[in-house]
Amino acid sequence: MIQFMSDYCEGAHPNIIRRLEVTNFEQFDGYGEDRICREAQELILAACGRKPGEDLEVHFVVGGTQANKLVIKSALRPYEGVICCTTGHLNGHEAGAIEDTGHKLLTYVSPDGKVKPEMIDDCAKRSLLAWDRDHLVLPGLVYVSNSTELGTVYTRAELLALREACDKYGLLLFLDGARLGCAMASEVCDYDFRFLADVCDAYYIGGTKNGALIGEAIVLRNDIFKPGFKNLTKQTIGKLAKGWLLGIQFSELFQNDLYMENARHANAMSKKMRDGMAAMGVRFLVDGPTNMQYPILPNDVLDKLGKDYGFSLNGVEGETESCIRVVCSWATPEASVDAFLKSLEALL
Amino acid sequence: MIQFMSDYCEGAHPNIIRRLEVTNFEQFDGYGEDRICREAQELILAACGRKPGEDLEVHFVVGGTQANKLVIKSALRPYEGVICCTTGHLNGHEAGAIEDTGHKLLTYVSPDGKVKPEMIDDCAKRSLLAWDRDHLVLPGLVYVSNSTELGTVYTRAELLALREACDKYGLLLFLDGARLGCAMASEVCDYDFRFLADVCDAYYIGGTKNGALIGEAIVLRNDIFKPGFKNLTKQTIGKLAKGWLLGIQFSELFQNDLYMENARHANAMSKKMRDGMAAMGVRFLVDGPTNMQYPILPNDVLDKLGKDYGFSLNGVEGETESCIRVVCSWATPEASVDAFLKSLEALL
Amino acid sequence: MIQFMSDYCEGAHPNIIRRLEVTNFEQFDGYGEDRICREAQELILAACGRKPGEDLEVHFVVGGTQANKLVIKSALRPYEGVICCTTGHLNGHEAGAIEDTGHKLLTYVSPDGKVKPEMIDDCAKRSLLAWDRDHLVLPGLVYVSNSTELGTVYTRAELLALREACDKYGLLLFLDGARLGCAMASEVCDYDFRFLADVCDAYYIGGTKNGALIGEAIVLRNDIFKPGFKNLTKQTIGKLAKGWLLGIQFSELFQNDLYMENARHANAMSKKMRDGMAAMGVRFLVDGPTNMQYPILPNDVLDKLGKDYGFSLNGVEGETESCIRVVCSWATPEASVDAFLKSLEALL
Amino acid sequence: MIQFMSDYCEGAHPNIIRRLEVTNFEQFDGYGEDRICREAQELILAACGRKPGEDLEVHFVVGGTQANKLVIKSALRPYEGVICCTTGHLNGHEAGAIEDTGHKLLTYVSPDGKVKPEMIDDCAKRSLLAWDRDHLVLPGLVYVSNSTELGTVYTRAELLALREACDKYGLLLFLDGARLGCAMASEVCDYDFRFLADVCDAYYIGGTKNGALIGEAIVLRNDIFKPGFKNLTKQTIGKLAKGWLLGIQFSELFQNDLYMENARHANAMSKKMRDGMAAMGVRFLVDGPTNMQYPILPNDVLDKLGKDYGFSLNGVEGETESCIRVVCSWATPEASVDAFLKSLEALL
Repeated sequence: MIQFMSDYCEGAHPNIIRRLEVTNFEQFDGYGEDRICREAQELILAACGRKPGEDLEVHFVVGGTQANKLVIKSALRPYEGVICCTTGHLNGHEAGAIEDTGHKLLTYVSPDGKVKPEMIDDCAKRSLLAWDRDHLVLPGLVYVSNSTELGTVYTRAELLALREACDKYGLLLFLDGARLGCAMASEVCDYDFRFLADVCDAYYIGGTKNGALIGEAIVLRNDIFKPGFKNLTKQTIGKLAKGWLLGIQFSELFQNDLYMENARHANAMSKKMRDGMAAMGVRFLVDGPTNMQYPILPNDVLDKLGKDYGFSLNGVEGETESCIRVVCSWATPEASVDAFLKSLEALL
Repeated sequence: MIQFMSDYCEGAHPNIIRRLEVTNFEQFDGYGEDRICREAQELILAACGRKPGEDLEVHFVVGGTQANKLVIKSALRPYEGVICCTTGHLNGHEAGAIEDTGHKLLTYVSPDGKVKPEMIDDCAKRSLLAWDRDHLVLPGLVYVSNSTELGTVYTRAELLALREACDKYGLLLFLDGARLGCAMASEVCDYDFRFLADVCDAYYIGGTKNGALIGEAIVLRNDIFKPGFKNLTKQTIGKLAKGWLLGIQFSELFQNDLYMENARHANAMSKKMRDGMAAMGVRFLVDGPTNMQYPILPNDVLDKLGKDYGFSLNGVEGETESCIRVVCSWATPEASVDAFLKSLEALL
Repeated sequence: MIQFMSDYCEGAHPNIIRRLEVTNFEQFDGYGEDRICREAQELILAACGRKPGEDLEVHFVVGGTQANKLVIKSALRPYEGVICCTTGHLNGHEAGAIEDTGHKLLTYVSPDGKVKPEMIDDCAKRSLLAWDRDHLVLPGLVYVSNSTELGTVYTRAELLALREACDKYGLLLFLDGARLGCAMASEVCDYDFRFLADVCDAYYIGGTKNGALIGEAIVLRNDIFKPGFKNLTKQTIGKLAKGWLLGIQFSELFQNDLYMENARHANAMSKKMRDGMAAMGVRFLVDGPTNMQYPILPNDVLDKLGKDYGFSLNGVEGETESCIRVVCSWATPEASVDAFLKSLEALL
Repeated sequence: MIQFMSDYCEGAHPNIIRRLEVTNFEQFDGYGEDRICREAQELILAACGRKPGEDLEVHFVVGGTQANKLVIKSALRPYEGVICCTTGHLNGHEAGAIEDTGHKLLTYVSPDGKVKPEMIDDCAKRSLLAWDRDHLVLPGLVYVSNSTELGTVYTRAELLALREACDKYGLLLFLDGARLGCAMASEVCDYDFRFLADVCDAYYIGGTKNGALIGEAIVLRNDIFKPGFKNLTKQTIGKLAKGWLLGIQFSELFQNDLYMENARHANAMSKKMRDGMAAMGVRFLVDGPTNMQYPILPNDVLDKLGKDYGFSLNGVEGETESCIRVVCSWATPEASVDAFLKSLEALL
């Protein structure tokens, strides 16, 4: 069985495993106050064009649901909600993690998985500017994922337009970067980490889905998030005692261009998948420049294909077809892609 | 600087690091549904005298605060509280993680850090049996830590007495085993994992402080905790995508007696610390049979000792002395103990 | 200015005011444990075909948002959500009261404001029966309002079909009866309080919008809601110290058919409004057999009409028209209806 | 049976009942946006030496638990706690209402029921200034009740000292005035409403226990509480649809000195109780200048006394005695006091 279920099916880039071995018997301060975490924070700050002590804070957490939960919980007043797409990870796949903090999601249907300024205008009109606003959830933050859950990527212009819409109504802009590497390695991307730090009030850089064993790096710019963020973390999701485990991931990923290299490999394998399937006449749900593809295939083909390859069902398309998701990772061997395409060709 | 700050200052037992290397490029199902997690669950069930599919469920989480939060949140009705000692980890060092779930802690002062049946009786009298009970938080669960935050260990008889008190009032008994290895490796312990599974409604086996890189294993017996525990986990603290990282820890720790071996080493080093200090006439806050000692030392001695050795301040004792906590771990070299004792002797 | 904004714009039926005067210097036990509350509970139980001590519990609260919040909070596990219409009061007009308890609303668009069994099937298919259900909010309860927020009324057959769909998936059925009087006084209604008590796991009987000064009566049948419901009330929304104030409302409303009489008057006035407008050729958003009508009128007419009459804007309809909501109450004088119709006719 | 259980056993001052009658068929805007609420707000602002639009906001809620919950929830970050006495109403008699908002109570034992600056210093030292503060609940607000739950009253100097301690650590000061009338009518009180508005960041003026049928008036000075306070109210506890019911209470109480007159009567009756009992040699738990007394009496006397008079048990005092609470209200007839004293004398 070859897995294309997700980009978290293998361990970590060998550099990370090696660092774990080398540091194993050193003694560290607990809970992320160690020298490797500091090193990793400085590398990320440098990528954002900052030095320690300036306007950015970097915090490491174990996973993406945690990052979303913490950032949102730290900034919103209890009656404030989050504008997002129905496809947003925090809406569909986090088992109510945001509602668990008391905040409502104000959702909009978006075929390409991206939030649009019109949605923000519409939400403001229905709440902030409405005659009965005292009885309503008021938006406080806009949540975007990049790349989105459909594998699409925001452009610089799109992010600037969202920033403008947020400023119009006093909303925060937060970017979920669980798959940020693949977004930034795609041909659509016309910005760098520094731009993201400047345009967003907070964002996070995903490690788990881009070659880390574990871990996401939250970057906070707006001061509203910062007071007591460590206490908030401890209270909400616990803090990792051996915090340097997280530091090691990002220290390695942000040296020698490893973060982007991992993402470029995943995108390249995914492009090969896509081109191969397109050449066989396969249709796709959306146009995906990153490491996830959403081909639409006959159900009987999928039944057979599923015996040797792992993928996930995205949805039913009519009576005889379904849309699946196939994902390549930093670790996907080219041979696996070749095998998949060959098997599919034989079935079509 | 030699650290006796805590038992989470070093990485993981080399067997665990080796397993990480060996499995690094295998592909696994995500979120703990993989074969290594299953293997680890079966090893723990066997230690509890159970087979899969019987009355116990085993769930892995990243840390102890998470385990406490999940177990308590899964079982209590919103107005129910938790009987515990003021020294209980969830009262003093989890930044309000339990209150974050809406539950009040009903605390009792206990010099040895243990909950006593009389506290349960007293709490029941003041709430469950009181005339104004509709206006009160009602106890729903009793929380004990073993070993306690003071390094003391419950006996079989003590745990049975707590079970009886819980049954009297319909309360759940939950045991926090962040340092369960050292408790069970101590000379005070007259029970095994099976007894704990039977006497408690739920308990957890700590990995982080006993040689794991990360992870705690929650054992649920009472059915009240079980429905949707995975959804609850996802919602509350997130689930680790590469869940086999947790499986690897417990698979290794529960083979070849490694869990108990790690604990025995930590206890032996701690005993050497204690005996060495006692021989110099040092007094202790409590009698500690595990890996933590609470010596009381002159402040000027501590100032000098603190230059070469890491430890934590437990509290001020009068004008000229303080009580500190020194902790040995599975990884503490005997040479570090010898060095500490030699340095202390020179200062006294 | 004559108000048709809502059915809570006037005080209370004179019988209630009189009872307040008469009892003013009697001494009562606090927090709803008094003789008038008991009397009111027995009257409601009798309407449901029950005696005290059987399967129903009756609890009084101040308002409808409170009733929704308490009932839902008391029964759901933390990761469970509520199936409802987007128009549901708890979705649109309670400022996130349900999310404040940690529960997600699983919403469906419904043009007539009613939940349909197909929505329940769809939700179950996407969550309870899905391959990734451990990562999802699972439905736990279905929320219906009767009459709905659009003034429509469920039939007996519709409620029985919802009951069946709930039983299929193990879901609770809860009916918000903020405007239950008007629903039951409408020609659509083919059931009584007893049927509602039997078909729903819990429901509430609205007082505020049907001639009470204050108060709603929650009727609990399913045992899952009952343990510690008073503690839950105290904790979540506080308990009214002078609880007999609520008892007085329902004691009066459930004597001499007053509850239904109030509703019949409101419906009759509303029908006169509707018939009058229909005769002028006005279109309506939905067909409303209760005390709320949703006429669609030209914006310039509304501007002028709004100078003398109060109503609320429901939504914009194209470029030149809007839909408004006009509500009659137990206290609406027929002369007010006549005046409104006359003014409108002059403007059209 | 004559009730001394509490000061909420009778209805409302006749002026209030009369106002209800007179206004019953007027039409009002809902949810507290009516002219009577505005009138009441202006009367309270005037008592605080303010005009509308200056630094104070006045909000009405139904009860005291609601007021405590809202004020605390609106200002604290999630990991912040509340310094209070163990006797504080929000600690002992609100069924965990504050923990329900996620906040921990940081309690101190205080024999007279008052918070002392030393407690604030101690709490700051153990948390804000501690080396492990990232793992702790940090105090955010100090809660005092006045009069306290033991019937004692803060002096101007005591409140100023608390203000100073709060400012030292950046904490908010909030005063629960459920029984503020009796505090201010006592001989201990050397300040007015204006002083309270200036010294506290927020406080509330209790109506329920001082002659209102229902309702408390929250006074907010610090801007931290204000944004979206109405949305917060709706979300957390619901808003009263017929909000003028609350306006009527405070409009009447703050005209013609009625608020203070009610309190003076309650205090005078209570003093007569106290003096009468003291003359019989009865001891008291504390020295109470307000409307609550805590006499210590033999258990057999209490058994007999309890047949004709209602009071509550405060606690057991040794083997043969208990301490009870007897409360007089704005409505207590002098004849009831005389009867009680006569009966007691006969039993002693």
